[in-house]
Amino acid sequence: MASGEDDLIAKYFRPLAQAPASLGLLDDAAVLEGSGDDLVVTTDAIVEGVHYLVGDAADTIARKALRVNLSDLAAKGASPVGFLLTLALRKVNETWLSAFAAALGEDATTFACPLLGGDTVSTSGPVMISVTAFGRLPRGEMVRRHGARAGDVVAVTGTIGDAALGLDILRGGRAAGALPSHRREAEFLVDRYRVPQPRLAVASALRASASAAMDVSDGLAGDLAKLCAVSGVSASIELAKVPLSAAARAVVARGAATIELLIAGGDDYEVLCAVPPDRWPSLAAAAAAVGVAITAIGTITAGTGSPVFLDATGSAVSLPRTSYSHF
Amino acid sequence: MASGEDDLIAKYFRPLAQAPASLGLLDDAAVLEGSGDDLVVTTDAIVEGVHYLVGDAADTIARKALRVNLSDLAAKGASPVGFLLTLALRKVNETWLSAFAAALGEDATTFACPLLGGDTVSTSGPVMISVTAFGRLPRGEMVRRHGARAGDVVAVTGTIGDAALGLDILRGGRAAGALPSHRREAEFLVDRYRVPQPRLAVASALRASASAAMDVSDGLAGDLAKLCAVSGVSASIELAKVPLSAAARAVVARGAATIELLIAGGDDYEVLCAVPPDRWPSLAAAAAAVGVAITAIGTITAGTGSPVFLDATGSAVSLPRTSYSHF
Repeated sequence: MASGEDDLIAKYFRPLAQAPASLGLLDDAAVLEGSGDDLVVTTDAIVEGVHYLVGDAADTIARKALRVNLSDLAAKGASPVGFLLTLALRKVNETWLSAFAAALGEDATTFACPLLGGDTVSTSGPVMISVTAFGRLPRGEMVRRHGARAGDVVAVTGTIGDAALGLDILRGGRAAGALPSHRREAEFLVDRYRVPQPRLAVASALRASASAAMDVSDGLAGDLAKLCAVSGVSASIELAKVPLSAAARAVVARGAATIELLIAGGDDYEVLCAVPPDRWPSLAAAAAAVGVAITAIGTITAGTGSPVFLDATGSAVSLPRTSYSHF
Repeated sequence: MASGEDDLIAKYFRPLAQAPASLGLLDDAAVLEGSGDDLVVTTDAIVEGVHYLVGDAADTIARKALRVNLSDLAAKGASPVGFLLTLALRKVNETWLSAFAAALGEDATTFACPLLGGDTVSTSGPVMISVTAFGRLPRGEMVRRHGARAGDVVAVTGTIGDAALGLDILRGGRAAGALPSHRREAEFLVDRYRVPQPRLAVASALRASASAAMDVSDGLAGDLAKLCAVSGVSASIELAKVPLSAAARAVVARGAATIELLIAGGDDYEVLCAVPPDRWPSLAAAAAAVGVAITAIGTITAGTGSPVFLDATGSAVSLPRTSYSHF
């Protein structure tokens, strides 16, 4: 008497639900055992044609759906506990679902974040994948957006702007023209757009050292402005220090993008944090120890104005836009 | 520097986020403080044109989105803690959003389930509202689907089939023809489709008495089959005992629906439970004390066959279908 929906869940998603909390996806709810730890809860959805391109491979879509949430957990200093998956599909495409579930299962294992439950619904519109992820951390230790203080070092993990360039390449934009004979660099940038790298390896170090943090998902400039606004501070950033990949540097060198555009582009999924200067060396050392690049790009300043971005001459640049917005 | 999305959240949803765990919707995540209690987590999405009709009023859509999740918490014996909201919209319609947020806020207050966080994305397709709800209960006490034993009383809260008839009326089906001069009855059935009544008032009594429970969302017959399958039992149900509202009885009496159809219809959002006979009187008394109707409709039986539904003569009836499936 199982319905099509139940069959789909049993076939593709029950194998991913190995944690006791999931109850084998055979109940109406998951149950997270009480403990002294705080539970960090975050939810991000990705929509076909908005957060990924129509025709993108199912495996990269699955990874992105989970990883954009893991990126939030990392920035908050939490260790993954598990996730819920809500899938809105037009129809059941077994090939697509099989690839989607396989990649999701791989990432769930890689990041120790098992599937706990979810919902599957039909839609006539774009596919939408909504993930709610849970993380644990010691009581009261979540790293918030609030908490940055004047004098703190501003730092980011990884490199900034790759994903925006990757999207530009996929759309045949100027970056595509800049990398015609550099296929490997173009692939690197596209991969950075399609498959974020959640910086969970630095979560505990952020908890120990950062006064504030968030993940960069809608553009470094706009996200820093949000962190500063919530913390009641401003910031001064040296554009020359913003870490760029070799591929991004190549695109900028060829004049097909500017640093101003890169810091306003979305989908970086790197950690942006403010760190008291006396704790910065230990955070930098901890990140290096786990192989995550982290770069100081400026300083938190007093005041409530928008963050200032300085060029090589020390002049403030004006940004045409600072972030991506859905509306 | 706030984006349209941030403005939308600040204007419509921040007022609903009064719980400390929400951090005023100003962070990337919510944080649920550790305690000895278990946390029950459930997620259900509703899609325009699938779970509600295009053109339905924003206030009823908001209530349904939250309540279908609260219904799960009730069936599991949990008290609400809060919820996450993921909203996929085609465009920002201020009138719609204002009514949606106002009704959602009212329900959040009524059911003591504050908004904790969420995500807002754009879509070119149907509106989709995904809610993840959190509930608390003493450690190890979640009422599961698993646990029903032969001899248990099978009971349901409220009345069954109203929502399926309400949907039929909205679609101009046979039920609409059966109630032409009975506008109040038709309105009652439509309201039952649009605005479920989560049975949170019996949550603690279910925890004390039920051996297994779930909410009926896809049809009593199919959902009972699921509960039995997970519990490794079967059931024998007397159709004459299935509680019907006066309006539903009127439709059946006029030949515009059959009880077989009503027990296969979706959207009841009542609690289905199995209760050891010695604990049934105390559950019935507890439900009566809080004004929730609960009715014994049959018995859990040994074996693993599909539940049997008996007519007034004691003969098993065959069901044309048992539940709603999205695929």
